[in-house]
Amino acid sequence: MPDLSSTPRTTLRRHSERGVADREALHAVLDAGLVCHLGVVADGAPRVLPTAYARAGDLLYLHGSTANATYRAADGRQVCVTVTHLDGLVCARSVFHHSINYRSAMIFGTARLVTDPAERAEALRAVTEHLTPGQWSYARRPTRKELAATAVLAVPLDEASVKIRDGGPLDDPEDCLAGVWAGVVPVRMVFGEPEPDAALRPGTAAPWHIRRYRGRDTTGRSA
Amino acid sequence: MPDLSSTPRTTLRRHSERGVADREALHAVLDAGLVCHLGVVADGAPRVLPTAYARAGDLLYLHGSTANATYRAADGRQVCVTVTHLDGLVCARSVFHHSINYRSAMIFGTARLVTDPAERAEALRAVTEHLTPGQWSYARRPTRKELAATAVLAVPLDEASVKIRDGGPLDDPEDCLAGVWAGVVPVRMVFGEPEPDAALRPGTAAPWHIRRYRGRDTTGRSA
Repeated sequence: MPDLSSTPRTTLRRHSERGVADREALHAVLDAGLVCHLGVVADGAPRVLPTAYARAGDLLYLHGSTANATYRAADGRQVCVTVTHLDGLVCARSVFHHSINYRSAMIFGTARLVTDPAERAEALRAVTEHLTPGQWSYARRPTRKELAATAVLAVPLDEASVKIRDGGPLDDPEDCLAGVWAGVVPVRMVFGEPEPDAALRPGTAAPWHIRRYRGRDTTGRSA
Repeated sequence: MPDLSSTPRTTLRRHSERGVADREALHAVLDAGLVCHLGVVADGAPRVLPTAYARAGDLLYLHGSTANATYRAADGRQVCVTVTHLDGLVCARSVFHHSINYRSAMIFGTARLVTDPAERAEALRAVTEHLTPGQWSYARRPTRKELAATAVLAVPLDEASVKIRDGGPLDDPEDCLAGVWAGVVPVRMVFGEPEPDAALRPGTAAPWHIRRYRGRDTTGRSA
């Protein structure tokens, strides 16, 4: 596997101690996320779109509508995809060192609009299963017409950087002498109690893959 | 106040029913977020950076280090700033209608690197107070040297679009006849128990503005 930080733009010039250069760390950040931010250049200006995604090996699949102009603008062009997890508010003894704990991955690559029906179906399966594991085999599969209305972008995971900040505040020694509280307020995403659709047929129970969300956070831990 | 959706790129071509064109909705999405994604064009390619921010009236302040190349690249240039809240997994009876509930704001504008020391101090105050209300008056204020090492970008809130999806799945009528569960798994960000710094002076109690995070979500509700 090539090293991830092999280009000037993925080499961290600041806080290089927060850089993580291995592929395993990249996969961990991507696999833990639900929404990414896709950056494209449209008419010379940047455009940042939140979108669903999934990792399939060393490819990232992004999923949208064929009517989405940003997706069409991205085909064959350089894109940047960023996934960020906010993990905590880092409260320092000085405002200057106030910070956040986070994990983020930034991927640079040339996007390809997936045209092969089989790859598009596989990408849709990957995105559905990434968002909601178990849903692909539970819900009705897409028809040929539905697949044709689905736009999928593929971005290779060859050029990427991962940045992680964790732990407590990094205060100046003289500030630590003051009786000021410092520490971290943890932040995480949690799932709530599944809410049945109003038009649900009476007596339709939620399947296990939905029931298990209750009281879990996005890492699968008990909330 | 000018209408927010007055340019071609902020006019929603898809799911225009999800577009919200008023300034109040824009402010609500921005004020509820903690991290934004800043898109810039660097060497002709897009770059998407997660960063802390705050809204001050009709300006957005983004805060980083003066050593950050993305910030320098953004000065006087077109940027796109996107704030996204994931609110739920929308589980439909068909994979094609599987979706997510979200609120997102996309701001287009020319960024300005703030050079005036007074405005920079005010922006740092706004970002600190947005992340952690109460912290600015509790922690040590920045010195002149610290302020000089802080980069602040200002982006006007003149051209923006807000998109919100909420509610249940939009299934095809024939799929609703099947005994398949459908509904929404809510997602939200919650704060955990504040974790004191290891080097804290014994007996230093967390102040009220930190203690109140416990068991709250990012909207301030009880988790």
